[in-house]
Amino acid sequence: MSKVSNRVKIIMYGLGYMGKEIAKLLLKKKGVEIVGAIDISKDIVGKDLGEVLGVKKDLGVTVTDDSKSLLSKVESDIVAHATTSYLTQTFSQISECVMEGFNVISTCEELSYPFKKHPELANKLDRLAKENGVTVLGTGINPGFLMDTLPIVLTGLCQDVKKVKVTRMMYSGNRRIPFQKKIGTGLSPNEFKQKIEKKEITGHVGLNESIAHIAAALGWELEKIVEEPPEPIIAEKELKTSYTTVKRGQVAGLKSVGRGLIQGREVITLEFISHASVEEPYDEVIIEGTPSIHEKIIGGVHGDLGTVAMVVNMIPKVINARPGLLTMRDMPLPSAVLEDMRIYLEWETP
Amino acid sequence: MSKVSNRVKIIMYGLGYMGKEIAKLLLKKKGVEIVGAIDISKDIVGKDLGEVLGVKKDLGVTVTDDSKSLLSKVESDIVAHATTSYLTQTFSQISECVMEGFNVISTCEELSYPFKKHPELANKLDRLAKENGVTVLGTGINPGFLMDTLPIVLTGLCQDVKKVKVTRMMYSGNRRIPFQKKIGTGLSPNEFKQKIEKKEITGHVGLNESIAHIAAALGWELEKIVEEPPEPIIAEKELKTSYTTVKRGQVAGLKSVGRGLIQGREVITLEFISHASVEEPYDEVIIEGTPSIHEKIIGGVHGDLGTVAMVVNMIPKVINARPGLLTMRDMPLPSAVLEDMRIYLEWETP
Repeated sequence: MSKVSNRVKIIMYGLGYMGKEIAKLLLKKKGVEIVGAIDISKDIVGKDLGEVLGVKKDLGVTVTDDSKSLLSKVESDIVAHATTSYLTQTFSQISECVMEGFNVISTCEELSYPFKKHPELANKLDRLAKENGVTVLGTGINPGFLMDTLPIVLTGLCQDVKKVKVTRMMYSGNRRIPFQKKIGTGLSPNEFKQKIEKKEITGHVGLNESIAHIAAALGWELEKIVEEPPEPIIAEKELKTSYTTVKRGQVAGLKSVGRGLIQGREVITLEFISHASVEEPYDEVIIEGTPSIHEKIIGGVHGDLGTVAMVVNMIPKVINARPGLLTMRDMPLPSAVLEDMRIYLEWETP
Repeated sequence: MSKVSNRVKIIMYGLGYMGKEIAKLLLKKKGVEIVGAIDISKDIVGKDLGEVLGVKKDLGVTVTDDSKSLLSKVESDIVAHATTSYLTQTFSQISECVMEGFNVISTCEELSYPFKKHPELANKLDRLAKENGVTVLGTGINPGFLMDTLPIVLTGLCQDVKKVKVTRMMYSGNRRIPFQKKIGTGLSPNEFKQKIEKKEITGHVGLNESIAHIAAALGWELEKIVEEPPEPIIAEKELKTSYTTVKRGQVAGLKSVGRGLIQGREVITLEFISHASVEEPYDEVIIEGTPSIHEKIIGGVHGDLGTVAMVVNMIPKVINARPGLLTMRDMPLPSAVLEDMRIYLEWETP
């Protein structure tokens, strides 16, 4: 019994695709216990989490839509939050957890570095977290790693930095269907244009945050951050994907570009490119400086696998961190949780 | 005057090649002041640091070999230490600084993760640092970044890790002459063998430390760490370097390999390869896991430039860190110091 009560206790908040994947990975880890599950979907409220995740056995955790009641009665070390990309939508959910005294780790893209786009909400959340002695972190693979943490870390090698450019070149044809839809796969160029105008296609959420994050780490005061509307990538030949067949001339995916400027000079460029005709995916960081750095992850990194990993791997570091709304640049080096999660809570160097 | 006294004050300890390069980079940074300089070399003791560094003006700092006297009377935020690779030689120097109440950042390779090879010295230094409320960090490009920090960070993307392999493939023909000598450039295979036996050639210092560092970050209990004796790389054709001409059949450089094992299974492999016939230098990390990661710095990173950068860039983070003997895995993300160094001391997220 004492052993059980020492496990790292986690409440799941949001059981869409990402939330379920995070929960499934947590079930594979030692020293971890899921002690609560919150979701608003009528399809799963009232069901056992084991059934919702499609694992064989019941987990003794019933999915509830009454977050207030759950959070007020369950003891837990952290809430793993995965609902939407936008801080205006997640703020009340996250602040509710914080006010009940829980650390929060979230996949909310805008939470990864919210101080530029949402300074009021960010400062309010920071203040609430400090008042309640808990830590809040937004992370994932992107934002959270590929376009912020990794280029920041690589500048550590540089005596001087003139410019940082990051490119994520992603093959989309084997990704889950909602993702392929989100990037316009199979639309006509005209339909794509209309969906951009109606903001039904937004491109990658996180460019603004990653640019502000890099600038903050480097001490750069950006004059402005420009996020260009996503451009369609048109198929030059017929492309078969796991979702549909894209005909020649239809949209194969999109390109989103963000730029950070100082006195008119572009010092940060982030390119997110995802479509069904990418033959060699990669993630690349180019730093112009002394020395210059040309870094590449050959084959790229699978977005969903990586985000789930980042959330689970950062859990012990969030539990150990000082109170406040933190960002990846405030955290110690990310690293994989491979053994019993409790050993990573022994913060001190041996 | 008040502005001057707010600058980040640094004492240089050791003014060999690396110490001088660190000092020269510090002179380029804003908000920084070198307030003392220690070295034992008779050629430079008593001279102004400006003269020693070959900069135009006097700096008003006289090089002294009396560390005790200097450390007892000068106020400073940190000591930048660059003398030798071995902790048995640097321990008394570093502990002297610590006992006088100074934070220390050092290029000493064995200090980067000393808990495995020198547990007693490491624990003693950790205790001293805590007693005196200061932080000690050993860093550089390697150890310090390429074979520890970077692979550790990349495992953050992984749900599972089976094996970590790092290769540093370095072109040596344009490196400084002491480095080319250190790797046996131009020796006959027999001379190389003799120098290995007499330990005049040691190969890369840091493999043991980087292996132990990765394992600690991942929570792996290694059964053993094996460092193989360096192997010569034989020139297949005549090679001209900035130091000498290597004839066909002579030694062009060397290869050092370190391995970390768990139950006979090799889980960490570090390869350091440096010779005058490398055509495409690179630094590579391969992680076998879920997902697997294949990362490469194309063209590699210049060792001296990178070490100097890492030391200077980590200074504000060491000043801000909790007391103790820390390692890179305990620190927040490395990042470049590009503006006035004082702004990086504002630790809190804005």
